[in-house]
Order: sequence, then structure tokens, then C-alpha cells
Amino acid sequence: MSTGPHFPELILSGIQPTGSPHIGNFLGALSKWVSLQRTAHDSVTLLYPIVDLHALTIPRDPEQLKKSKIETAIVLLACGIDPARSYIFEQSRIPAHTELAWLFNCITPMGWLSRMTQWKLKLKTNSQFSEDEVLSFSGLCLGLFSYPVLQAADILLYKATHVPIGDDQVQHLELTRDIAQMFNKMYHQNVFPLPLSITTSAKRIMSLYDPSKKMSKSDPENTRINLSDPPTIIAEKIKKSTSDSLKYITYDPETRPAIANLVTIYATMQGITIDQVVAEHGKSDIKTFKDALTQVLVEKLSPIQEEIQRLRLEQGYVQQVLKNGAEKASMIAENNLDEIRSIVGLK
Amino acid sequence: MSTGPHFPELILSGIQPTGSPHIGNFLGALSKWVSLQRTAHDSVTLLYPIVDLHALTIPRDPEQLKKSKIETAIVLLACGIDPARSYIFEQSRIPAHTELAWLFNCITPMGWLSRMTQWKLKLKTNSQFSEDEVLSFSGLCLGLFSYPVLQAADILLYKATHVPIGDDQVQHLELTRDIAQMFNKMYHQNVFPLPLSITTSAKRIMSLYDPSKKMSKSDPENTRINLSDPPTIIAEKIKKSTSDSLKYITYDPETRPAIANLVTIYATMQGITIDQVVAEHGKSDIKTFKDALTQVLVEKLSPIQEEIQRLRLEQGYVQQVLKNGAEKASMIAENNLDEIRSIVGLK
Repeated sequence: MSTGPHFPELILSGIQPTGSPHIGNFLGALSKWVSLQRTAHDSVTLLYPIVDLHALTIPRDPEQLKKSKIETAIVLLACGIDPARSYIFEQSRIPAHTELAWLFNCITPMGWLSRMTQWKLKLKTNSQFSEDEVLSFSGLCLGLFSYPVLQAADILLYKATHVPIGDDQVQHLELTRDIAQMFNKMYHQNVFPLPLSITTSAKRIMSLYDPSKKMSKSDPENTRINLSDPPTIIAEKIKKSTSDSLKYITYDPETRPAIANLVTIYATMQGITIDQVVAEHGKSDIKTFKDALTQVLVEKLSPIQEEIQRLRLEQGYVQQVLKNGAEKASMIAENNLDEIRSIVGLK
Repeated sequence: MSTGPHFPELILSGIQPTGSPHIGNFLGALSKWVSLQRTAHDSVTLLYPIVDLHALTIPRDPEQLKKSKIETAIVLLACGIDPARSYIFEQSRIPAHTELAWLFNCITPMGWLSRMTQWKLKLKTNSQFSEDEVLSFSGLCLGLFSYPVLQAADILLYKATHVPIGDDQVQHLELTRDIAQMFNKMYHQNVFPLPLSITTSAKRIMSLYDPSKKMSKSDPENTRINLSDPPTIIAEKIKKSTSDSLKYITYDPETRPAIANLVTIYATMQGITIDQVVAEHGKSDIKTFKDALTQVLVEKLSPIQEEIQRLRLEQGYVQQVLKNGAEKASMIAENNLDEIRSIVGLK
């Protein structure tokens, strides 16, 4: 696969400003974003929008949303995002996102969206008390159906060539490529790159309660370790996490998925291999292993937490970082959208 | 019905920049817009966006779209829109339209949109070669499904209290009221008025070919008289218009819908009653009546056409009118959207 000809490398990924980021976000996306600052060439632009418009596809408390946006920016900085190298900004500060989304609405067949797995899952969840698929369809808001088009706009507005994503976003990135291709074909020009995914080697971190599900901000508090959780909360959540009654530790995702998940968290937080964890803790009982894991989490998260605490007192600085990020993003966005407006005949 | 408390009167209506406006547009919407300049109180704001974003729900030639936008503005001015009283502007110059549309996407149930008659008609047209409704659904673009939400944003962005509309838009205005109500309820504030329709007393002008259909820009050239048609073209179109073989003129929409339509056009263009037309031309044969109608059309359209010709040579002036209109609209839009952003928690 290729992004198409002549597009300067630009890496973009969005983060939802809903609730505090957790170790799944950290070990999956955020640590990758941080490492890209070292591994990507200086000429590569790095953009990380806080996608507040996407947060609104489900009802939010307005005050909570405002706080979560700042908190998300704080956590990104605390994890090591360098605002001089990576641009973090609020999606809603750049109106070009929704403008381009509208243009894409006009070329995206309904069928492409109704095939999206995430949509089908929502339909299914919504119809749990009803056999009537039409009813469940009717009750869901348009935003839940159409947001993959806004995502495509988020990416293509900046002509992003590479997008770090998790497994659950592969289909949406494929849709983004389809929309880019459709637009390029329709207007006989190579306007957009066909962005490629950057998959991380990181293992997926699963829910502490149900190891068949990815750790998620939308699930209850006790299913995840937030980056801002204090030691007592971490200890409590790990203690209560799903386990089994065996008196030793193995890494066996098939038969012991909950324990395998704890082993994965231990290994990735500590920066060692799964085998090393099993060699070290194979003979521990579960309580002893959970205590050790708690200790690793507390130790590794404490410098991030100290930085979070510090930045919470520096809201002026954080606001300035977001403002600078929005200015940089706006320059790229307005330049690209001007070209696009002219191509489709709007100006 | 009421618009709700404390909203200053603001009248807004959009016009599609697709093809030249015809006498149906003139006798329906445009002449009403012109008369509102006299009849509305000085304190009432009058806004007429040229809705270029809506034009894109079906594929357009970009160069043609650019020309049509200017031509539409020229026709509005030639018909008597006074840019010092009424603001005409290009929808796409005000990004707040699509921003607000996104916010509305997030509160509009899919079911509200799938019930829209215009959508059902498109589904039906698209499935003419197929029994499979799912297939026809899949092939239509999202824009055709979601544009009533953008229309709601077009209206509510300015907190419009009154919207001059034709019969075919009644359901969409009802949706706009539903969305306004949903938003107000969700955020416990009277943010938006519930806009009312202004219906004109004008009779609907039907297609010259099929008198059961409204005269429309989307139908073939010979089904309508464009405001810019020269006398020879008007004569030809009227000559070829659907009629019957009776040797006299009556106004009987049930049994002689084509002739009734021609009588209506005659009466409204001439500013006289239907009865007066029938009294004067009852004993004419159809050819004679058509010649008289052609003469009325040529006579009434010629000052408009002269003005169109003049303004086509004054593109700088027309661009300036659009720019001023966009500045006025932008001031209202940004002010309102700022309030809305704050209410939903985006800032």
C-alpha cells in the first residue's frame, strides 16, 4: 500500500476528551506518540487533536467536558508530549473539520457507513430490549452514524499520511482511504493522500473486569487504571480485578485471559518481556503478584502524576499550548481547505 | 404556534445556486423577498443565503457552480433585492453553518430523517430498477439523508424567527422546530426560537411539460421559463408547453391542469386575478392565448433581464455585495455560535 505520490509525511491521531486517560491509552497510543518525537524525521509534522466534537455524539455534561479537555491536554504533556515538536489542539477550534466533513458527506454512500462494525455494535446494543432493528436505528442520533466521515475529515484536512491507530480503528481508516480515493477520482486530482496506519507493537490492554474487552473510558471506573489514580486507588482496583483461584502465574491468554492481561500490564509498564515476568513471578500466588504489579504501576505512574499535579496549577500555560497548537493546525487546515473549496467550485 | 419568548424578528430563506432561477422561483419566493423589504419593520433583519453547500449533495461541475453562484446573486439583485436592506451571502463563507450542523447531528435521531418525504422520494427514485430498498439506500450519499439537519443549522444559526417557504419545505421546517426544541430541552435554556413559516399567497407555478409537478431547476430546460430567457426562447417554450385541443380558455386545475397553470402564470405575472384572465381570454383559442402569455412574459421579464445584463458587466460590484452580506451574516453567526459553544461545553 502507498499513500499516493508526493505527500510530505504528516502523522495525526486524535484523542477523546472524555474522562481521564488510562494505562491502556498510555501503553497503546500515548507512549507511541511520545516515542515518535524521537524516531520521526524532523521534517515530519506531528498533530494530535483533542476531538471534542466527537465527544458530543453522546450527551455530555458541559462543565465536565470543558474540564476533561484541559485534563486531557495536561495528561498528554505529563506523558512526555513536547509542544515544541508535537501540536496538540482542540478540534472544535478549527471549523474546517466540519466544513470538510460536509463535503465528504456529499460523496460518501450511506452503505459504506451502515457497514461499519462500530455502528452495527451500537445498533445491537440499542436493540437489546427489542427485536425491532428499525426502532433501534431510529433512536440513535445521526452523529453516531456519520462520525466516521468527520474522522476522515480530521485526517484528510491535514493530508495526513500516517495515522497511529488501534485494531478497532482499522475499518474507519479504510473508510478514510475510500473517501480520499473517491474524492480524488471525482475531481481528477491527487488532492488527498491515502493515509496508512501505524500499528504499535504494544499489546492491547484489556478491562480489569472483563478481559475479553479492551480497557475503555466508557466502562465503569473499576475496569481501568487511570493515569491520575493515586496509589490507594491503584491498589484497590488491582486487588479487585478479575482473577482465578490458581496458586501460580502463567501467561495463557486463552485459558487465563484475566491473568494474562495483568502479566501484559506488568511487562509493558516495566519495559520487560512477558517471559521475564513469568520467570520472575511464575511461582507467586495471585495476591503476591497483584501486590508486585501495584508497586510497578505506582512507581511508573508517580513521575507522570507529579507532572499532572504541577500542570494542573499551570492552566495558563496549558491554554497557551492549546492555542499555539490550534494556530499551527489552522494554518495547515486553511491552506488545504482553500485548495479544496476551489476544486469543488465553492470559490 | 409561537417562536418562543424574546427573540427579535429575523427572516431567513435560502436559494440554491444551481442553474438560472425561473419564473416559479420569482413568483413564489423572490417576489415575496422583495416585498418584505417594504412590509417588514425596519428592525427586522432579512437574510438570504445562497446555499452552495446544499448544491453539492449531487455532483456538480465546479466551474458551473462558481458561475451559478454569481448568476444567482445577479438575479436576486435584478429582481429587486436591495443589498442595503437584505443581506445576500454565500453559505460556504460562514463555517459556522457546518459547525452547528455537526452539533445538531449529535441530537437528531436517525428516525426523524428517515421519515422525511424528500428522502423517501429519493429512495424510491433510486430503486426504480430494483426491488431492494437496502441497495437503493446504500447507493445514496449521506448528504442527501442529512441535509435537513444542515438546513436546520442554516436557520437556527441566525436564530431566525420566520422562514418564507414553499409547501415542499413544510416538513423540513417542522424538523428544524423539533431540533430547536430538543436542543433547548437538553440544555435547559431557550437558546433557539421555534421558527415559523411565512407562506405566500402566490399560487404554485407548475412544470410546462407535466402540470402535476412544481416547476423546478432540476427538470429539463423546456419545462420552465428562466428569468434570463430571451423572447425567442420564451415564445418557443410556451408554444411547446403541454396543452389540449379545446378551442377556449378556462381555469380548471382538475380537468385542464396544464391550461390552468398557464392561466396562473398569466395572472400572477400581470398582477391580475384568475377571473380577469378568463374574462379576457375565455374565447381565445390556445395558440392566441399562448401568444398573449408570451407577450406578458417578455414584457414583464424585460426590465429584469436588462438589469441582469447590466449586472453581468459589474461583477466587482456583485462580489462586493456578497462580501458585505457575508460580513453581516458572520457577525450574527459568530456571536450566536460562541454562545452555543459555551453552552455545550466546547469552550
